[in-house]
Amino acid sequence: MPASLARRRRAHLRTPIRAVDVEKVRSLGDLLTAFQSTSIQARNLGRCLEVWENALTDPKRPTILLGLSGPLIAAGLRKVLRDLVDWGLVDVVVTTGAVMYQDLYQTPQVGGVHWKGTPLADDVALRDLYIDRIYDTYVDELKFEETDRAIGRLTEQFPARPASSREFLQFLGERFTDPGSILATAARRGIPVFSPALIDSSIGIGLTLHYQKHRGGPRFILDAVRDNFELVQILTKSPRTAVVYIGGGTPKNWINDGIVMANYAFGREGEGHFYALQITTDVPHWGGLSGSTLDEAQSWGKISKTATRAMAHVDASIGLPLLAGALWDRRRVWQPRERLAFRWTGDELDLTREPAGGRPRRPRAKG
Amino acid sequence: MPASLARRRRAHLRTPIRAVDVEKVRSLGDLLTAFQSTSIQARNLGRCLEVWENALTDPKRPTILLGLSGPLIAAGLRKVLRDLVDWGLVDVVVTTGAVMYQDLYQTPQVGGVHWKGTPLADDVALRDLYIDRIYDTYVDELKFEETDRAIGRLTEQFPARPASSREFLQFLGERFTDPGSILATAARRGIPVFSPALIDSSIGIGLTLHYQKHRGGPRFILDAVRDNFELVQILTKSPRTAVVYIGGGTPKNWINDGIVMANYAFGREGEGHFYALQITTDVPHWGGLSGSTLDEAQSWGKISKTATRAMAHVDASIGLPLLAGALWDRRRVWQPRERLAFRWTGDELDLTREPAGGRPRRPRAKG
Amino acid sequence: MPASLARRRRAHLRTPIRAVDVEKVRSLGDLLTAFQSTSIQARNLGRCLEVWENALTDPKRPTILLGLSGPLIAAGLRKVLRDLVDWGLVDVVVTTGAVMYQDLYQTPQVGGVHWKGTPLADDVALRDLYIDRIYDTYVDELKFEETDRAIGRLTEQFPARPASSREFLQFLGERFTDPGSILATAARRGIPVFSPALIDSSIGIGLTLHYQKHRGGPRFILDAVRDNFELVQILTKSPRTAVVYIGGGTPKNWINDGIVMANYAFGREGEGHFYALQITTDVPHWGGLSGSTLDEAQSWGKISKTATRAMAHVDASIGLPLLAGALWDRRRVWQPRERLAFRWTGDELDLTREPAGGRPRRPRAKG
Amino acid sequence: MPASLARRRRAHLRTPIRAVDVEKVRSLGDLLTAFQSTSIQARNLGRCLEVWENALTDPKRPTILLGLSGPLIAAGLRKVLRDLVDWGLVDVVVTTGAVMYQDLYQTPQVGGVHWKGTPLADDVALRDLYIDRIYDTYVDELKFEETDRAIGRLTEQFPARPASSREFLQFLGERFTDPGSILATAARRGIPVFSPALIDSSIGIGLTLHYQKHRGGPRFILDAVRDNFELVQILTKSPRTAVVYIGGGTPKNWINDGIVMANYAFGREGEGHFYALQITTDVPHWGGLSGSTLDEAQSWGKISKTATRAMAHVDASIGLPLLAGALWDRRRVWQPRERLAFRWTGDELDLTREPAGGRPRRPRAKG
Repeated sequence: MPASLARRRRAHLRTPIRAVDVEKVRSLGDLLTAFQSTSIQARNLGRCLEVWENALTDPKRPTILLGLSGPLIAAGLRKVLRDLVDWGLVDVVVTTGAVMYQDLYQTPQVGGVHWKGTPLADDVALRDLYIDRIYDTYVDELKFEETDRAIGRLTEQFPARPASSREFLQFLGERFTDPGSILATAARRGIPVFSPALIDSSIGIGLTLHYQKHRGGPRFILDAVRDNFELVQILTKSPRTAVVYIGGGTPKNWINDGIVMANYAFGREGEGHFYALQITTDVPHWGGLSGSTLDEAQSWGKISKTATRAMAHVDASIGLPLLAGALWDRRRVWQPRERLAFRWTGDELDLTREPAGGRPRRPRAKG
Repeated sequence: MPASLARRRRAHLRTPIRAVDVEKVRSLGDLLTAFQSTSIQARNLGRCLEVWENALTDPKRPTILLGLSGPLIAAGLRKVLRDLVDWGLVDVVVTTGAVMYQDLYQTPQVGGVHWKGTPLADDVALRDLYIDRIYDTYVDELKFEETDRAIGRLTEQFPARPASSREFLQFLGERFTDPGSILATAARRGIPVFSPALIDSSIGIGLTLHYQKHRGGPRFILDAVRDNFELVQILTKSPRTAVVYIGGGTPKNWINDGIVMANYAFGREGEGHFYALQITTDVPHWGGLSGSTLDEAQSWGKISKTATRAMAHVDASIGLPLLAGALWDRRRVWQPRERLAFRWTGDELDLTREPAGGRPRRPRAKG
Repeated sequence: MPASLARRRRAHLRTPIRAVDVEKVRSLGDLLTAFQSTSIQARNLGRCLEVWENALTDPKRPTILLGLSGPLIAAGLRKVLRDLVDWGLVDVVVTTGAVMYQDLYQTPQVGGVHWKGTPLADDVALRDLYIDRIYDTYVDELKFEETDRAIGRLTEQFPARPASSREFLQFLGERFTDPGSILATAARRGIPVFSPALIDSSIGIGLTLHYQKHRGGPRFILDAVRDNFELVQILTKSPRTAVVYIGGGTPKNWINDGIVMANYAFGREGEGHFYALQITTDVPHWGGLSGSTLDEAQSWGKISKTATRAMAHVDASIGLPLLAGALWDRRRVWQPRERLAFRWTGDELDLTREPAGGRPRRPRAKG
Repeated sequence: MPASLARRRRAHLRTPIRAVDVEKVRSLGDLLTAFQSTSIQARNLGRCLEVWENALTDPKRPTILLGLSGPLIAAGLRKVLRDLVDWGLVDVVVTTGAVMYQDLYQTPQVGGVHWKGTPLADDVALRDLYIDRIYDTYVDELKFEETDRAIGRLTEQFPARPASSREFLQFLGERFTDPGSILATAARRGIPVFSPALIDSSIGIGLTLHYQKHRGGPRFILDAVRDNFELVQILTKSPRTAVVYIGGGTPKNWINDGIVMANYAFGREGEGHFYALQITTDVPHWGGLSGSTLDEAQSWGKISKTATRAMAHVDASIGLPLLAGALWDRRRVWQPRERLAFRWTGDELDLTREPAGGRPRRPRAKG
């Protein structure tokens, strides 16, 4: 073999795959580290951990935005998500309305429960029993009605003026004082939670009743464009940004478009997101945004040309606990990370850093 | 074999599969009819046609809502979608912002074009060339900027008051007078077009610039909850409803939730959607709304307990032209169908029927 | 904009997408041509047609190998597949045993029927009724037993010696004289049909009973490696090869590996397959062979470095009739193509060309 | 609410979902146990563990058959698979040829390595470098040639007579004495390994060269039907059977069909498989065997009407280490399980049980 050929071969054959040895796996941190030396989606999941850790330890302290979609509460991820917020592993949450609605449904104030069901259920029979099905999980429609009433009552207390989804969700989070709640934890920690399609959820039912009741008079107006204006400020005041997408949908698209808007229309001097990871079950070849690669996003300037990025094709019910558990195992790495302090005067943001509170507070929730 | 066993067997073995004979297929109508006697997704696509036809010929004249998500303009479906609107095969459109934005990008006023590209492109190189990639298709960022400017100018002309996405999109549709445009055709035909997550699209960029410019003073406020209130009225004033979902996402969820809201919170006396069909590439077993079965939706009351429904797993770029072409072949069936007339006084809807205009007008568009 | 930038942009923005206009689609040929100017999977399906046509009109007359897997007979594709063989659009067939078994089940000698069923069936109840389910299709276990008996009787007449699956399937095809049968049509046309995993099918049941009966004495031995030897000869004696994969599985892998074996181990002077198209519902990112890209196959030498290739992600029940119908519309293009004559002396192949029989014979089958 | 309605509701709302708490997960056993109280695919994966444990602790001692397909060695699963064999968690292995070929490629005798690559590689360039790509992993074609030569040399030593794939693979396994090898470990443990489509793999290249060399004279004949006969005996002599499918393909189909063949054609007095679990990335709605539900298999009698079964949609690179690690954590449960002793006289099987060797031997492999 000519030397030049051998050399070019060696350039490609540098890093061997190492087989996973489950006898040596003592923790989820071990497992994900082992995955980094394998292939296919295990490697991708391992790389997601690596990208997240890089974002957490970057001395420029990127702002980390978390996008949430899919049946995450049904999937048993409420505690995991609440922990990510409490531990400071994310700085901003963007979510479908459904995730937050089901988070509130489980607060002790309502007492809702997600129940084990079956995908082969007789749905017409369930209808008669006031049971709603989410694939293999049941929710209680009567408790949904209680959730609606609770949200409806609180909406009446909200000031009669235009506001963003972030303000309204913070208002709710402050009033559902459940340490196990994602929304309440975010409110306590000062983490902004946006829901750019909030009307497209059961939370929207209460808002629509409020609309009808106060129609023509002063009322709370969900001023959707204000969400954009607030997001632009967050991005503009962040020297760097990182994104963690659980699923796709509106949250992924909105966060990705946000950075384009900030850079192109609002004079932000910066690049696309600098770190990007996604857990998804969608695929690129349907051409939709949810399954589109993070490379494709680079052509749009959504993701920085030099971003580190990883995309793992795995159901979030499996992939997210693995990631979160591995991050917990390595908490010494990110415990010193400063927190962000978001202070809002109307729609105006003042964004500063605060020292980390030492080791993360022992979460009070039981899950 | 005992007679009872033979009888029970016969009850299951009633309708034979018939092999497709492409020599006898003279039209897309023929093909889809043939598909109805096959299996797997061809049968499902054939059933989608059947469900749609049933909705179109139901003497109670159901209101047909079309939900749109995915890269539909890139996929070459602009003419097909515009035809569905023009021919009266749908009465209400609910869409992601991106579909309408890319519809406007292609109007002669902007002159944008979708170009053939490749999924293996060098995305960092494309970035430098102001070319954005949608899987295997390129769009021109410079023309996107023109689209933004055109939308921005028009937004300045929109009244400084709260409005729904439907009002704003109708306003845009009336000003982009392209017979090939989906939005312009809807405006001309009086078909309402909603985008419940409108801020999550490039249209949102212009709206955010408008927000910033008029901040503190009077301005157009995208009053998201008003979308819900308008939708509830459409559903409440429709004796029956049918849904056609191309993809999933916010449009599917919002239309499905809408009927629950109307029935449960607004005293509509009716059931869930009476006809339902979906073309999707998502799958049920991830538990998300986009891929969830129309059976599951029955447990929620979103789909009527006695609804006819069909779900075909096929990319819309292939499945939708087949459906639309088959419907065109059978235009005699639906040509006599009355049109709906939507008359809005502020946020108040007056909904009446009008006689069909005979044969559908020869579409003027060139595609 | 600098001229060099403009020039580089133009190099990428050359071919516009053209929207499908179903009013102008008069045939499946029209539709697939229109698809070639769209995007996402419609374009890919259009390109599959183009690749197949290129193979059919290449003056070097490539040998075209068809790989078959999946529930193709249930899907109503028996007539389409039989036509591809009869019309000479493929020269060699490689198949799972199940496809050929279900082809024989439908011959008038057995009288089996595929029946419309439902994926929501009570499978335990079906078991008691001797009904077997293939997703949404039922087959009759009692007719399966008749099929087994018919195959079993014929196996007894097969010479007591080692033979390839090709010889055995040809033997069966000659004895099930149904013009609608794929296998019988292949036998009549002299098209070799291989099934490299034939024992993994119901045909294997009869073979195993034959084994048991003649154990220790002379018997028909399915000499699996002889299949490889015969395939190598076909490939070696073909100046060029083309592959058409419906699904993946063993047929795709075996045909792909075959050319590597012929080139690397048997001194064939040639490249990988020169034309390659696949219709599949699998995806690349699981790393399996069925969903792997035709690019990946180039690294192995399975597909020529300069091959034209296309891969469409669509269910075969929809995609294959579209392709076959478009090819039928364009039959003038491929009617003059010469036929291959396979003459076997034992395991030795003599491969020659014969003039096309003018226009394809009117198929006698009813489907 | 009427009492009867409340009672029927309670019957459905019995078992609450419990959120995963990663702070409390000390091991993979903990995690999978937690998954059993969640939803979507995490629950399914948890149920796979439960089904496997049930099979392992059933006092009737079912024979457990493992079906393997997909890029498992590339995925870093060689050690995990070897452990499953060594620990006695499976009794019979059915595999594609590729898995065993790549297992042998990694033996020290050959010294092959799987290397980290990228799915975005330039495949034509790799071709020139003698590097073959498996999605994101590279293998060395020069080492593949060494593997071929090693297998070729051994084939020459194999007796010149018809034999099953099981005999041939055992022969190879005895000669590649690598404690880290799946095949060698199976040979040492006396676990039969079948490959019903062995010719469809690189192992087939050596066999075809052997065929050519000894053509006309005495030679090793891969007597495919003998595989079926041997499998039937294993199933017939097992009072109960369990199946573990990693992926689908020929291994799943062959094991599923095998029990039908044994029961229907060979007078086995028993039911379908009594325990069944599958990890797959395929989906049911394409109608293929790989993705078909275990319920569908019940209609065929492949899976017992009363079987416990579970199917998790997750990539094996992630799902299998989780399962194997959880089983290792719970090794006290299955350590007392008796081993099976397979003794073959020609094609005749004598199947007996042997006491467990106490705790599993410390695996000698390094992975």
